[in-house]
Amino acid sequence: MQQVRDLLQERVAQLREPLGPLLQHLLLGGKQLRPALVLLIGDLFAAPAAPFQHLAAAVEMLHTATLLHDDVVDQSRLRRGRETLHTVWPTGAAVLAGDCLLGQATLLVAELQHPRVFWSFGQLLCTMCAGEIHQTLVTRGKHTSREEYMGSIEAKTASCFAALAGMAGLLAEADERQVAALRLFGRELGLAYQIVDDVLDFVGDESRLGKPAGSDLRQGLITLPLLCYLEMVPGDGPVRDLLAGQADEEKVQALLETVRTSGALPAALSEAQAHAERAQQALVPLPNNRALRTLRSLAAYVVDRDR
Amino acid sequence: MQQVRDLLQERVAQLREPLGPLLQHLLLGGKQLRPALVLLIGDLFAAPAAPFQHLAAAVEMLHTATLLHDDVVDQSRLRRGRETLHTVWPTGAAVLAGDCLLGQATLLVAELQHPRVFWSFGQLLCTMCAGEIHQTLVTRGKHTSREEYMGSIEAKTASCFAALAGMAGLLAEADERQVAALRLFGRELGLAYQIVDDVLDFVGDESRLGKPAGSDLRQGLITLPLLCYLEMVPGDGPVRDLLAGQADEEKVQALLETVRTSGALPAALSEAQAHAERAQQALVPLPNNRALRTLRSLAAYVVDRDR
Repeated sequence: MQQVRDLLQERVAQLREPLGPLLQHLLLGGKQLRPALVLLIGDLFAAPAAPFQHLAAAVEMLHTATLLHDDVVDQSRLRRGRETLHTVWPTGAAVLAGDCLLGQATLLVAELQHPRVFWSFGQLLCTMCAGEIHQTLVTRGKHTSREEYMGSIEAKTASCFAALAGMAGLLAEADERQVAALRLFGRELGLAYQIVDDVLDFVGDESRLGKPAGSDLRQGLITLPLLCYLEMVPGDGPVRDLLAGQADEEKVQALLETVRTSGALPAALSEAQAHAERAQQALVPLPNNRALRTLRSLAAYVVDRDR
Repeated sequence: MQQVRDLLQERVAQLREPLGPLLQHLLLGGKQLRPALVLLIGDLFAAPAAPFQHLAAAVEMLHTATLLHDDVVDQSRLRRGRETLHTVWPTGAAVLAGDCLLGQATLLVAELQHPRVFWSFGQLLCTMCAGEIHQTLVTRGKHTSREEYMGSIEAKTASCFAALAGMAGLLAEADERQVAALRLFGRELGLAYQIVDDVLDFVGDESRLGKPAGSDLRQGLITLPLLCYLEMVPGDGPVRDLLAGQADEEKVQALLETVRTSGALPAALSEAQAHAERAQQALVPLPNNRALRTLRSLAAYVVDRDR
């Protein structure tokens, strides 16, 4: 991971002021789960480390680029404990900074000279955008079903984890069956990860999350904890207000508290747990070594984390 | 070109409503100079057409993606005769639509399975972003010199034309000397093209340009026609007001009229002409056939065009 961080720093340092220093904080401030996944898959096949460090850096850049653009889309004010770029700069500068990271990520992937990996990267970009667009233009402010929720997190998170696990497998010259196992692992890990993210939006506090709790609710986004709550408690008055854009901050806080104490969060977490276990099962066809055990722990960590 | 348009339509049609129809208009509404350049280079080497149609479509998608993001950055209201996407949709949707096209462009390039071409594509993304960021955060609202102006249009336009001519050369398996000649042709063509664009911003009318004249001035962007004017007429009162953000619409219109009648536009156009001629000279080491003659005319067209 240190070499990935060095690579990220080196690439971002090439960008002119004021972009370089700002992006450095953003790039190195996250949980870095995606690059860790890529590096572990390299270890799993005892492959030379350098290409995986490249891919890991690319993946973290791509992720950060999408965060920058999502913050513009969602008009979020805080990210990783700091003001978002578009609140301190003109919106356009945050858009361009995201594009710049996207360009750097594309270049890092191109440097791998691996046509199938590059193609997967292109696919990944398209899938992620389609997921975000669907959420922004279609899902938001609508009372979604469980199926729609799962479809939405599939598109925006699970497909991304599946793609990057698959890309790492291709880079390791794993066979097709192993690449498929890695994609499935990534997918289930991504589903578990996103469900936990959505639970943390109900329980987390700002100092740990780096952003205020209840962000999804304020944006009219119905996630699994709320769906679990609605299944347990019929009648959806507060939710209707929320979707109609008539929920003030007091109502949002009251709804957060209601869901927190309703038993809906453990219900959502047990869904996440089920996906994490499916992720662990997906690992069976892969080499049984120390890296595999760490991938197994990664699936457990994704559910246990508190930020 | 018809096959490129079909390919663009086909790819965009895969995008869900409401994105597909909107992007179709944008993608097919421009001058399509970039895809024409790519196709002509394929013809120049009598290479099979399909890969060049792919690259041409990718290049037009990338160009349209940058227009979408630039319109957000510049807060422009009109593009290609229609309201810009971010004025009819939330800003975020225009950002995501641009990302989506960027993803589709990357995928089209990836499908070429040509490592050097996709590396060039990654480089191109980085260079274009760096140019746009520099213009947005550094150049805007500053009294630039001729050198700074040339550096700026080099980064934002010429490097892009150079890269795509080079990519087309690589795809045609041209030798290194020929690729270098194509890059030089692209660069000089790009410089001529951008200077003429900047002249048209003074003379063009909205119905032909698809956007109001004087857009650059209103954004505090000093381009070559104004620099030529300032060299001819010492004293820069109106420009100082403009850069200080104190120019109302009346002052902008007066300045447009002053520059138009000052002889500055022919001076700027003769610069463009010089670059177009250098572009034509760059073609000397390339196969002398019908495609070469069309490339030569393309360089002439870039200066003669009125939109």
